[in-house]
Amino acid sequence: MGPVELTDSGTLATLRLVLDLVGVFVFALSGALLAVRRGLDLFGVLVLAWVAGLGGGTLRDLLLGRTPPAGVSDGRLVTAALLAGLLVFGLYGAYRDLARRHPDVRWGRASYAVRVLDAVGLGVFAVNGALLALAVGAGPLTATIVGGVTAIGGGLLRDLLVGQVPEVLRRELYAVPALTGAGLVVLADHLGVLSSAVAVGCAGLVTVVRLVAVGLDLNAPRALRTEGPIRWPRREE
Amino acid sequence: MGPVELTDSGTLATLRLVLDLVGVFVFALSGALLAVRRGLDLFGVLVLAWVAGLGGGTLRDLLLGRTPPAGVSDGRLVTAALLAGLLVFGLYGAYRDLARRHPDVRWGRASYAVRVLDAVGLGVFAVNGALLALAVGAGPLTATIVGGVTAIGGGLLRDLLVGQVPEVLRRELYAVPALTGAGLVVLADHLGVLSSAVAVGCAGLVTVVRLVAVGLDLNAPRALRTEGPIRWPRREE
Amino acid sequence: MGPVELTDSGTLATLRLVLDLVGVFVFALSGALLAVRRGLDLFGVLVLAWVAGLGGGTLRDLLLGRTPPAGVSDGRLVTAALLAGLLVFGLYGAYRDLARRHPDVRWGRASYAVRVLDAVGLGVFAVNGALLALAVGAGPLTATIVGGVTAIGGGLLRDLLVGQVPEVLRRELYAVPALTGAGLVVLADHLGVLSSAVAVGCAGLVTVVRLVAVGLDLNAPRALRTEGPIRWPRREE
Repeated sequence: MGPVELTDSGTLATLRLVLDLVGVFVFALSGALLAVRRGLDLFGVLVLAWVAGLGGGTLRDLLLGRTPPAGVSDGRLVTAALLAGLLVFGLYGAYRDLARRHPDVRWGRASYAVRVLDAVGLGVFAVNGALLALAVGAGPLTATIVGGVTAIGGGLLRDLLVGQVPEVLRRELYAVPALTGAGLVVLADHLGVLSSAVAVGCAGLVTVVRLVAVGLDLNAPRALRTEGPIRWPRREE
Repeated sequence: MGPVELTDSGTLATLRLVLDLVGVFVFALSGALLAVRRGLDLFGVLVLAWVAGLGGGTLRDLLLGRTPPAGVSDGRLVTAALLAGLLVFGLYGAYRDLARRHPDVRWGRASYAVRVLDAVGLGVFAVNGALLALAVGAGPLTATIVGGVTAIGGGLLRDLLVGQVPEVLRRELYAVPALTGAGLVVLADHLGVLSSAVAVGCAGLVTVVRLVAVGLDLNAPRALRTEGPIRWPRREE
Repeated sequence: MGPVELTDSGTLATLRLVLDLVGVFVFALSGALLAVRRGLDLFGVLVLAWVAGLGGGTLRDLLLGRTPPAGVSDGRLVTAALLAGLLVFGLYGAYRDLARRHPDVRWGRASYAVRVLDAVGLGVFAVNGALLALAVGAGPLTATIVGGVTAIGGGLLRDLLVGQVPEVLRRELYAVPALTGAGLVVLADHLGVLSSAVAVGCAGLVTVVRLVAVGLDLNAPRALRTEGPIRWPRREE
């Protein structure tokens, strides 16, 4: 995983690897789907899959001083991201053709799939980032924030690269479940009850909260009621 | 402040903490104000307050190899940024209502407040970044550039996140006073006359120069005279 | 070059410095040209020259844990970037006037010059990043990716700062030659045949492949045929 000697048990280390692989794969799918919908070529798709899948973990490792980050040194994770990119690239044309011949299969399905994947990745990375931070000796505040950055970093960099205001800023509750999940892991560690089951439970909780927020179109409160989608007008001065 | 053992005196270390708290707070106010004006929800406001207030210091710490950066590990600084976000979020609606009922209280005031805060933060962070770099043994070039990056980094990341071309590139003299202030700190250190008073003086100088530049609408020279505001057309080819 | 003790021979170390200076200078030219075409003032031009010329190497050093990065600590490289910025700033007005009086001298020339410079920088930085990564003991995967990031990082940050979708995502083959060049350096090192001549050959190969791709308007395959330039519509949902 990296150059830092970790102090947690073998079970948690294994769990972290599995969570990492799952999170990288689903986030990379979301990056690749965005890329093909923007008409990017094969390597643009692979770049965006890499950024979405491994960007959050790379920020996490830089913040924790773990160099080189897993995103440029762990062959298993890089392979997972590239496989997700190739999969989307290969199947997207077929899917689009199918959708055209059968207009009842709606675009919205792909969009929905991206959101579910995103929610799973959010939970997995929030928990995983916090676990890793604790394993290298970070304090509770650092572990919570690093968990949050791990979870939202890949999607944020993905959106910045295609010139889109990051979803974390403009959409239904996003950062809140991520920080909550990371905070629960830190709390469990503090109480001495952190186990694989607890970690998986926290990841699942984040995913469910996020999916409910998407389904109900929940948002955190705003300072002023705004109508319709946010438009990002030029700043008035 | 972080894991690196600093070598400066206790007085300068205390000054650096105070400067950091002030700079984080005022930059976080600027981020939060931008966020509420864009209609972001509570957590979008807090994220932007964190990025504007702590982004520059986080870049500084990454460049100096100080991990985890203060922005994710120092509870005092994180609290200052979040308090600024909550303050703006809570008071903005009331302010807007007031402004509507009393049209003579103009929008421009809030815009002006942001600029003054920004100028204060610019001076504080430029000096503080240079002081910290010197304290961890960096050379004069590194200390000057790191001071500049500390000062402009938060605003730059803030602007990138909301899809706005960074002010540092398109506005009145911005990077110049920051780099000058950092350079003066380095010079004072080289001459052996660096004290708390000198450091505060440098920060004040940067702030004043920046405010004068804003007031007079001063700009650095351009290669070609352009009319009106920069429009960022598609690159012609 | 930095705080890490390098293990390669003196010849390769000298070569890396020369390659670095050339790459920084040509990439900084590309950043400065973009800046003057956008109407930025002198310091905006210098900032963009610094970002384009030294951004890729700074990302490289952060990924390899080399702090402070050469981009904020190596006076020779910083000087090369600023000189390129001043050169473009000083000559651009004269060039533009000349172009106006002689309309047969077309805009396209400057655009072409930027592309050639970009191709040279791409080859130089891909090879140089891989060489440095190997010199500090990185594995083959890390050295290849770090070489690629070194090559495309500066242009990517440059484009993000002016609100332009990065060329690496939307243009003819870009990441592919960079990663191939870095990979060839890694392969040569593995086979024990890495020498200055081989390194220069790899850099030249990347440049030629890139120029051919630009000339023939080659692109990597796309999942769906799209017509005309990519338009980046709002994501449909």
